[in-house]
Amino acid sequence: MKDLEEKILAEGRVFEGNVLKIDNFLNHQIDVELCGKIGEEFHRLFSDRQVDKILTVEASGIAYAVTTAQQFGNIPIVYAKKGNAKNMDKDRYTADAISFTRGGPVTFTVAKEYLRPGEHVLIIDDFLATGEAVSALIEIARQAGAEIVGCGTVVEKSFQTGRQRIEAQGIEVCSLARIKEMTPQGIVFED
Amino acid sequence: MKDLEEKILAEGRVFEGNVLKIDNFLNHQIDVELCGKIGEEFHRLFSDRQVDKILTVEASGIAYAVTTAQQFGNIPIVYAKKGNAKNMDKDRYTADAISFTRGGPVTFTVAKEYLRPGEHVLIIDDFLATGEAVSALIEIARQAGAEIVGCGTVVEKSFQTGRQRIEAQGIEVCSLARIKEMTPQGIVFED
Repeated sequence: MKDLEEKILAEGRVFEGNVLKIDNFLNHQIDVELCGKIGEEFHRLFSDRQVDKILTVEASGIAYAVTTAQQFGNIPIVYAKKGNAKNMDKDRYTADAISFTRGGPVTFTVAKEYLRPGEHVLIIDDFLATGEAVSALIEIARQAGAEIVGCGTVVEKSFQTGRQRIEAQGIEVCSLARIKEMTPQGIVFED
Repeated sequence: MKDLEEKILAEGRVFEGNVLKIDNFLNHQIDVELCGKIGEEFHRLFSDRQVDKILTVEASGIAYAVTTAQQFGNIPIVYAKKGNAKNMDKDRYTADAISFTRGGPVTFTVAKEYLRPGEHVLIIDDFLATGEAVSALIEIARQAGAEIVGCGTVVEKSFQTGRQRIEAQGIEVCSLARIKEMTPQGIVFED
């Protein structure tokens, strides 16, 4: 997605340890116009499938799940919660992931009543790197007996193993910007 | 907001300890159509003011911040993060709040570069009860020297002290559904 790649090149900063800082528009401050275009693009990529629901994880996937759901005719979204909240049902699906940004394990949780057997679920998230978060969402969708339509991520670090890991489970991955290489000197995208 | 009140009456469940469970459409699963209407309503309520940016907090405020920002012509949103993430700048505003759902203190954080002196900021969140979260957002906006245009919350428990606490700071509060009374037997709204 050209707009997105240009924005990453213009505004992204790369730090030690494969950290790409684009939180000025992706996941702290959000460029709402771009967020809308990202929703349109995910819809275009998956518009030939039946999608009943968008599944994402708090917090940074939510904005993109919303704009994608709007394009699919305002279908519902469900976001996995991290950790245990007081007001959650006991009756829930859980899966563990290692959080890159938090530097430790985190449990993803979805109340059972919000994911049903046979529902066609599209997984959306902001970043794909090692695939920890998306894999946990896949595990939850499978526990529910939902059909996973595919997985859309906004930015992919294609030099990491996330894509292989997800494709190995038979799930299609579409990323809107695929970073092949990044150093403090520059960012190179896949063709 | 009539649609919202009807939805709460039809689908909300009240539990011991003033817990209103409406996470089937508000903040775990999201009814994206209603979420869009909520954005329209916040826009209607604040359309006579200058609003440069929406400020909210992860995770449950984000969806409503996005749909509100869309109505204001795709202005940016910023969401405060909870706790300390590895990829955040050292240069940040912070404020503490007590989390009702998590049952303990939580630190809200916004990178200084995303809130500027003189920016006209509209605060949006899903719930207003004791006003802890909104007060922390106000504190952060004031640290930044931003102008707080007002505060929009989707659901207010008006029998709690949040509104008084925020109005006492000279900030206007608009809530789309104001619950005067709730018991497992029923929910009553303010007129």
